[in-house]
Amino acid sequence: MTRENRQFRLAARPVGEPKPSDWTFVREAIPAPGAGEFLVRVTHISLDPAMRGWMNAGRSYIAPVEIGAVMRALAGGEVVASNHADFAVGDRVVGSFGVQDFAVSDGKGVHKVDTAKLPMPTWLGALGMTGMTAYFGLLDVGKPKPGDTVVVSGAAGAVGATVGQIAKLKGCKVIGIAGGEAKTRLVVEELGFDACIDYKREDVRKALQKLCPKGMDVYFDNVGGDILDAALANLARGARIVICGAISQYNATAVKGPANYLALLVARASMTGMVVFDYADRYGEAMREMGGWVAQGKLKSKETVARGLETFPEALLMLFRGENVGKLVLEP
Amino acid sequence: MTRENRQFRLAARPVGEPKPSDWTFVREAIPAPGAGEFLVRVTHISLDPAMRGWMNAGRSYIAPVEIGAVMRALAGGEVVASNHADFAVGDRVVGSFGVQDFAVSDGKGVHKVDTAKLPMPTWLGALGMTGMTAYFGLLDVGKPKPGDTVVVSGAAGAVGATVGQIAKLKGCKVIGIAGGEAKTRLVVEELGFDACIDYKREDVRKALQKLCPKGMDVYFDNVGGDILDAALANLARGARIVICGAISQYNATAVKGPANYLALLVARASMTGMVVFDYADRYGEAMREMGGWVAQGKLKSKETVARGLETFPEALLMLFRGENVGKLVLEP
Repeated sequence: MTRENRQFRLAARPVGEPKPSDWTFVREAIPAPGAGEFLVRVTHISLDPAMRGWMNAGRSYIAPVEIGAVMRALAGGEVVASNHADFAVGDRVVGSFGVQDFAVSDGKGVHKVDTAKLPMPTWLGALGMTGMTAYFGLLDVGKPKPGDTVVVSGAAGAVGATVGQIAKLKGCKVIGIAGGEAKTRLVVEELGFDACIDYKREDVRKALQKLCPKGMDVYFDNVGGDILDAALANLARGARIVICGAISQYNATAVKGPANYLALLVARASMTGMVVFDYADRYGEAMREMGGWVAQGKLKSKETVARGLETFPEALLMLFRGENVGKLVLEP
Repeated sequence: MTRENRQFRLAARPVGEPKPSDWTFVREAIPAPGAGEFLVRVTHISLDPAMRGWMNAGRSYIAPVEIGAVMRALAGGEVVASNHADFAVGDRVVGSFGVQDFAVSDGKGVHKVDTAKLPMPTWLGALGMTGMTAYFGLLDVGKPKPGDTVVVSGAAGAVGATVGQIAKLKGCKVIGIAGGEAKTRLVVEELGFDACIDYKREDVRKALQKLCPKGMDVYFDNVGGDILDAALANLARGARIVICGAISQYNATAVKGPANYLALLVARASMTGMVVFDYADRYGEAMREMGGWVAQGKLKSKETVARGLETFPEALLMLFRGENVGKLVLEP
């Protein structure tokens, strides 16, 4: 075990893609847990597109990370010291521990996980915020019916891969959109989507027209930009668009709005934003169903693992460069 | 009565704002109704922003007007000859009679109105498609609750003026957005909105922030463009945006998509398109409630009347130049 606590703190609000100078790399003494607290050694840090949004000032669904603060991140780890009645040394836990080696916690928002049953990256992925986002975004907002055509962008990413698999389990026809042959192949061959469009090689609008001749009933958007416009051009009557994210726009200094938004009128369709935290009191319900699927091998959790806390600034950019497949996890 | 039938036929699909050369002005003999048909002398032609969309080729919620065809328009008139059992000479009727002096009809989509009770422009306005659009768009899609803040763009236009008045009748706080002092004054003083923003003089985003400190619960959009973006920046949690139209974009060769659409995510809000025809089997229900309000003086129908069929191409442009207040009607 390292004898110091390495951390990445936010040094500046990035303009466009985060630069090395937007971070401060700090080495501190390992903190000691106070009364009612415990110390976690972080073993896995979840890297998520949403983190880019947390770095911006201004009103959002969650307060921005303050300048000088340890970068916020969901993470998994092991309790190594405890003054808390409910958490014992050796417990494996998931919580918002930040981009650092060690975190002190009072247990709020932290839950224990059984890493003998499933590895930690799965607890951060299919059974973590990623999985909850996919589950509630698809089922509660997208409301697919058996036989519906569901299209998912970022299909090889953590949320997209999960959304498509859930939609298949619910009896839908599922089309993914991803970048590059390796990803589109994985999406179809390993994850069982009916088809996957390679946006780097294909005209997405035309490909969707061909694959969804009656239009799509549900579009789950993780990317925004031109792909959202291509989807809008291919809606079935009454289609539901789930706005989960817009990774193509997070580093843009001027967001490209969907020029085809009047297709919502033509198709009597809706576009609805979702934030997973709103479903916190129903995570248990999702965990049971998703956990069952994972245990039965019906829901696959894909991960890309980066190693070394010091690589964090570069590892985070893998998300925006499309270099990860499935859940991107950093092992410090 | 004129002895000929003057018509405007679509000559070309406009690029941008319709030009005189996009129309052919034709004089024909007055047609004779066949078996099961009747002849209508058109007295009032409804001019609507939607007409601009009908001139474009391509998939929409209704087939485009064909090149060479009489321009589609809702209109009111008087039956002057009839071979139809249900329609007698002297009946006042409303239907899709087109931009012409006379129309032959088989009665499909035509209904009789009592012009002794209310003038024809009201049957085309508050109790016509305009009123139905406002009623179902606001109540079924916007779903306002008493006490909600409802914001309406194009507030001095036919649909907007009606939406705001219905929202007031349903116990909401209502803010309009309109262009110029005459309109904003009318909206507040005559139509009873709580406030109206002048988008020509004010920063709409800031004005909305001031007038809706907790954000808006319903935004009824008739205009699109920058005003839609300003509205997106001021949503309350769970807000509903009704996409009814986008008059600022109808003549644009490249539509400006709402750059702030990710506010849907932050606010967990939805943006839904609506087309009034979907509510055809419920028009009766709306007519009863709206008719009662009009009779009791609680719902005012505003109209701007243009005169002379030959002025149609210019009269239509009044809509896009914001020169009308309330329902724009052409008396041939």
